[in-house]
Amino acid sequence: MLSKNKAKIISHLAQKKQRLEQGLFVVEGEKIAGEMLTTNRIDIHEIYALESWVEQNERLLRRYSNRIFTVTEAELKQISSLVTPNKVLMVAQLPPPQYDDAVINASFSLYLDGIQDPGNMGTILRTADWFSIPYVFCSPSCVDVWNPKVLQASMGAFIRVQSFEVAFDDLKKRFPDLPVCVSLLRGDNLFALKQAFPKNGLIVIGNEGNGISADIIADADYKITIPGGMTGAESLNAAVSCGILVSHLVNQ
Amino acid sequence: MLSKNKAKIISHLAQKKQRLEQGLFVVEGEKIAGEMLTTNRIDIHEIYALESWVEQNERLLRRYSNRIFTVTEAELKQISSLVTPNKVLMVAQLPPPQYDDAVINASFSLYLDGIQDPGNMGTILRTADWFSIPYVFCSPSCVDVWNPKVLQASMGAFIRVQSFEVAFDDLKKRFPDLPVCVSLLRGDNLFALKQAFPKNGLIVIGNEGNGISADIIADADYKITIPGGMTGAESLNAAVSCGILVSHLVNQ
Repeated sequence: MLSKNKAKIISHLAQKKQRLEQGLFVVEGEKIAGEMLTTNRIDIHEIYALESWVEQNERLLRRYSNRIFTVTEAELKQISSLVTPNKVLMVAQLPPPQYDDAVINASFSLYLDGIQDPGNMGTILRTADWFSIPYVFCSPSCVDVWNPKVLQASMGAFIRVQSFEVAFDDLKKRFPDLPVCVSLLRGDNLFALKQAFPKNGLIVIGNEGNGISADIIADADYKITIPGGMTGAESLNAAVSCGILVSHLVNQ
Repeated sequence: MLSKNKAKIISHLAQKKQRLEQGLFVVEGEKIAGEMLTTNRIDIHEIYALESWVEQNERLLRRYSNRIFTVTEAELKQISSLVTPNKVLMVAQLPPPQYDDAVINASFSLYLDGIQDPGNMGTILRTADWFSIPYVFCSPSCVDVWNPKVLQASMGAFIRVQSFEVAFDDLKKRFPDLPVCVSLLRGDNLFALKQAFPKNGLIVIGNEGNGISADIIADADYKITIPGGMTGAESLNAAVSCGILVSHLVNQ
């Protein structure tokens, strides 16, 4: 049985402030829960699931026996942030920030400058995951990565991609030699780059409405354009433009 | 004043069946309304707007004088499908399908095979618009292009990009020589294509969960892979993978 107090604590984890205070976040659904259990990269604090799901996943759940709580569909609905709750909800520990400076200096990373839409944020994490980008840095103005809608849209990418909130200036102080690449309306054509692009650096993705901050643009080493907009289109979706940039730079 | 009956008719246009029966659809918000008025490509049937918006846009609205109805915020909320209604709602005529066979035979077009998510559909239209792709064909299993959420996510792209519902077989019968390109997990690497890709054809984008139908794959002339997934990621978001494919094929 789910106590009222417990239900309240879990529901409150929908808020960023509560997640930070408790050091916990919530993930939901069979698919992501399965990945959390098999990859074992993020510490699972508690598992709330329908009895049928617990029975089906007995083997995977063995070492969590004292942290599994069977709930009814009504109880799951009470703590779920999904319109249609999906059998299991996990409370997990926010992973501590772990910078591997050597990896960051040798890889492409993303810097998200004010991504607001949870769907876009999740989709960007999923893209990073697909192209083996290990780090996604987020400006403090971004939607929180541990927001349930972001995690859902990421399709489990948050388990493999490391993401941290950090101001651009602080990141540049720590990695002063990392090339910075921004996309603008008037930059070099991505599909006809005159200079070879390095195999590492920060690829900056701007806010959905306002693009990239002026101070980051001023600091950029590479200014790139995804050519288009001839018919009157104003812009690409932020997650799509991220996918185009990353796919091309990683595979150049 | 907005009559109850009128409000009901407009609200019903949220349903595909009603849109087809009436030959009408609804678009909302200042930005898209402004584009509808300035581009003048889609026939506007009626305009419902706050008085302040009508006053601000007097010049653009001149020739619609007998089709403008000022409404209160409460009345707008009643007919709006947005959480926060945005000053103006237009009822417009569904544009009749107009195939320009010569253009289709000479261009890239998209064929969407069961895109379900309105956000993805709208984002794909926006991508087509950016890369000057004039036609987006949709399988009958797709979410309807004239769904309000699709139009909103398209950021006005539906005004410039022509989209029709058509079964793949019927399209192939009409354009038998058009090359068909699908993306699969095991195809040719998009970033190292061994054969030159034509400058026209159907780029097929599959359903979010199930990918592209087996019969379309069997019919494909080009089978392409967006390389990735080394860390365990299962797939890219459909709209992102569309953006990567289109950007690369258009700019090869």
